[in-house]
Amino acid sequence: MSKEITSRSEDYSQWYNDLVLKGGLADYSAVRGCMVIKPYGFALWENMRDNLDRMFKETGHQNAYFPLFIPKSFLSKEADHVEGFAKECAVVTHYRLKNDPNGAGVVVDPEAKLEEELIVRPTSETIIWNTYKDWIQSYRDLPLLINQWANVVRWEMRTRLFLRTAEFLWQEGHTAHATAEEAVEETRKMLEVYADFVENYMALPVIKGVKTANERFAGAIDTYCIEALMQDGKALQAGTSHFLGQNFAKAFDVKFLNRENKLEYVWATSWGVSTRLVGALVMAHSDDDGLVLPPRIAPLQVVIVPIYKGDEQKALIDAKVAEISKTLRSAGVRVKYDDSENTRPGWKFAEYEMKGVPVRIAIGARDLENNVVEVARRDTREKKSYPMEGLADAIIALLEDIQVQMFQKALSYRDSHITPVNSWEEFVKVLDEKGGFVSAHWDGTSETEEKIKEATKATIRCIPLNNPQEDGVCVFSGKPSRERVLFARAY
Amino acid sequence: MSKEITSRSEDYSQWYNDLVLKGGLADYSAVRGCMVIKPYGFALWENMRDNLDRMFKETGHQNAYFPLFIPKSFLSKEADHVEGFAKECAVVTHYRLKNDPNGAGVVVDPEAKLEEELIVRPTSETIIWNTYKDWIQSYRDLPLLINQWANVVRWEMRTRLFLRTAEFLWQEGHTAHATAEEAVEETRKMLEVYADFVENYMALPVIKGVKTANERFAGAIDTYCIEALMQDGKALQAGTSHFLGQNFAKAFDVKFLNRENKLEYVWATSWGVSTRLVGALVMAHSDDDGLVLPPRIAPLQVVIVPIYKGDEQKALIDAKVAEISKTLRSAGVRVKYDDSENTRPGWKFAEYEMKGVPVRIAIGARDLENNVVEVARRDTREKKSYPMEGLADAIIALLEDIQVQMFQKALSYRDSHITPVNSWEEFVKVLDEKGGFVSAHWDGTSETEEKIKEATKATIRCIPLNNPQEDGVCVFSGKPSRERVLFARAY
Repeated sequence: MSKEITSRSEDYSQWYNDLVLKGGLADYSAVRGCMVIKPYGFALWENMRDNLDRMFKETGHQNAYFPLFIPKSFLSKEADHVEGFAKECAVVTHYRLKNDPNGAGVVVDPEAKLEEELIVRPTSETIIWNTYKDWIQSYRDLPLLINQWANVVRWEMRTRLFLRTAEFLWQEGHTAHATAEEAVEETRKMLEVYADFVENYMALPVIKGVKTANERFAGAIDTYCIEALMQDGKALQAGTSHFLGQNFAKAFDVKFLNRENKLEYVWATSWGVSTRLVGALVMAHSDDDGLVLPPRIAPLQVVIVPIYKGDEQKALIDAKVAEISKTLRSAGVRVKYDDSENTRPGWKFAEYEMKGVPVRIAIGARDLENNVVEVARRDTREKKSYPMEGLADAIIALLEDIQVQMFQKALSYRDSHITPVNSWEEFVKVLDEKGGFVSAHWDGTSETEEKIKEATKATIRCIPLNNPQEDGVCVFSGKPSRERVLFARAY
Repeated sequence: MSKEITSRSEDYSQWYNDLVLKGGLADYSAVRGCMVIKPYGFALWENMRDNLDRMFKETGHQNAYFPLFIPKSFLSKEADHVEGFAKECAVVTHYRLKNDPNGAGVVVDPEAKLEEELIVRPTSETIIWNTYKDWIQSYRDLPLLINQWANVVRWEMRTRLFLRTAEFLWQEGHTAHATAEEAVEETRKMLEVYADFVENYMALPVIKGVKTANERFAGAIDTYCIEALMQDGKALQAGTSHFLGQNFAKAFDVKFLNRENKLEYVWATSWGVSTRLVGALVMAHSDDDGLVLPPRIAPLQVVIVPIYKGDEQKALIDAKVAEISKTLRSAGVRVKYDDSENTRPGWKFAEYEMKGVPVRIAIGARDLENNVVEVARRDTREKKSYPMEGLADAIIALLEDIQVQMFQKALSYRDSHITPVNSWEEFVKVLDEKGGFVSAHWDGTSETEEKIKEATKATIRCIPLNNPQEDGVCVFSGKPSRERVLFARAY
């Protein structure tokens, strides 16, 4: 099984595709750039979604649902926004098919042309702010804290499973506030929620920061982000939270009567994470034998495989496993007993390694006699004999340990891949030879940022929050700089 | 508050719209035929979705996600299917906008025309069976039991909030089986799951049956359905489960090696329910004062309103409510304490009546002294004093009683509106004067069915499962018939 996976050192990109396809996460589809999320991949996304959804609700947000289609004229109302999205829109122009009069099958009915074209939403600020206009009259209607789980479409030319697809699933929060301060606070609060989720559930350390003007969301005043590091040394933006100022309120004329009875434009935020996180998870933790999934969001946390000869041994093992499974399940552990007979234990071992199940328990006839089981953890591949007594508690502790160790491992890797550099030569050398984040002085201009990108394909991933202030000179232009920023090549 | 709602007797249709809009369930959107599902409406849908999802998983199904877009050629591969959906398709023809060279804003870029148009999925049989072709090789890959939660688009010309919208949310199960028997069994099993959910969670009795050829899903061999009755005597199809035979397997060439090592086409089912169920729920139970929601899926089950003068009384009530809420919450009850100060208790009472919260608890200073609370149930509007002692248990029992009584009330109404008729005159008279289901003999031909529809707008809702066989003559044609079928005007 594992032989079918390309190794990371051989071809990192192919290794990733192999894992996604052979791990049963997703499949290519017949529609260019769109993927099929397979049951195992979807179960992983469900666990991510359900935890995030709970965190959103705990911070006072409610879910709602807005139309898939956006009238073309709406997209145009915010200048930067349309500039950012117009080039990658799926456009609905007709609402009917008909039989071709020349017998060439079914064709678009030219008589069913829409008066105004509809855009399949690439993001929903415009349709939502057009709705908020009717929902907000007074400061009493604020804050409005709404989230939507939805599919969106951006017609990307170069697609990668999960990381960059024409259609993807995501959530988009859209909140409305009476003051700029409150909106900024919301923007940062949701960044913290994302960081909390990615670090504590996905076991993936992130750097919290602010984007430069070049990398900002189309229509935002400030884009906050969390940036993670993949095993090939490339960064991946894992989530963004935008302070939109009054841009969309002005574009859609959304005003409210404040406490002083004066009309004011409403302040906005939006924030989102997507199925891209599944790609980040795969790239951050997995190895050459398959997926390695953190226990808190793994669809399956423990798999039990029996090793036996004959029905008698099997019956004894079954009874014992029923007992163990019951205890684990009642403690909320997701367990599967795989006693299917058409494959051998060795095949099963490889299969569950491929699928990244955090803990595997094997039970044979001799184990029963000795009152032990063999426990293998997926992350370190360590195998150990565990006494049957107190097994459930030990497994629960082990799952917790795996979660912590996976985070620590990713953290060490990440921390050893933030390299301060002080010259252009060093900058290029570190990028090419070591990868990871390069911490360098920059003169603060978009021009320099673009030139660096052209020269090296590296972009400024973020200006970290609470960034230490330090005088220096820009590695590229030599102009004065007051702080270092993080550059990296990125997904 | 309640004065703003049109009464059922005055204008049933307007009453429904008033409830949906003023109850905070949904809103019209700027996109023709598409609605916005507001937070309260979405919370209701989430409760429906989560219960159904659990039931699907308990019956062995897994979730997955397939592309939003369907290549036009796919839709054409099954003849009946394309015939059924071609006339109401949103068609994507381009993938880019650009600035109009004449300065007229943003326009569709004619150079970004798709080679093959993409249809926004009206249902996903075609894209899914095209995928199943790669997933199914042998009988070992079967059954394949997959469900998808998704948005779909059908370009309806006359739309109604929830009941008939251009875009709606739904789930669609798509299963693949080795034998016809197994597929039929699955079709009927999912019909039972739907009936179970609608009756036991939505408190809405349904008739399980089979559709006639005229009313069948486009591409199905048999369409099973559950039919419910609304308060205006019109029927509403609440869910369908289709036995698709080998139609889609043949259209997409999906074969499997059976146990005898022979290639055979795979057998299929599909089944779905949608946000239309929210409309059914509103129409079935609500009254002239607002929504009436069954406790098991109500977003909020209990609301507590304090009645007090001054901070001292308020503090005492707060302490008592904290105690009650805690006990109720720990028993899984969804409780809200509304002590907001900008509205009076009377306004709150009307508001929560409008929103259909099953139980309202009011606590005043004198109640505290007497160690009682005032409890009002929304369904019967009965008010009663409850002792503080054992209150949580009493409320839990009350919620259960409301659930049961709401079902019983709907059942009595439904049962008293199934009217056997034996002549055409009687048929028309019952339809016009009483409404509900008309149980009549029919000669079994599509021709007669269509003529009856033209004459009365009534359709055959279903041939009930386990329908008693009984010789008779068709009420319309006078030709011989072996069983009665259920006619009704329907949503």
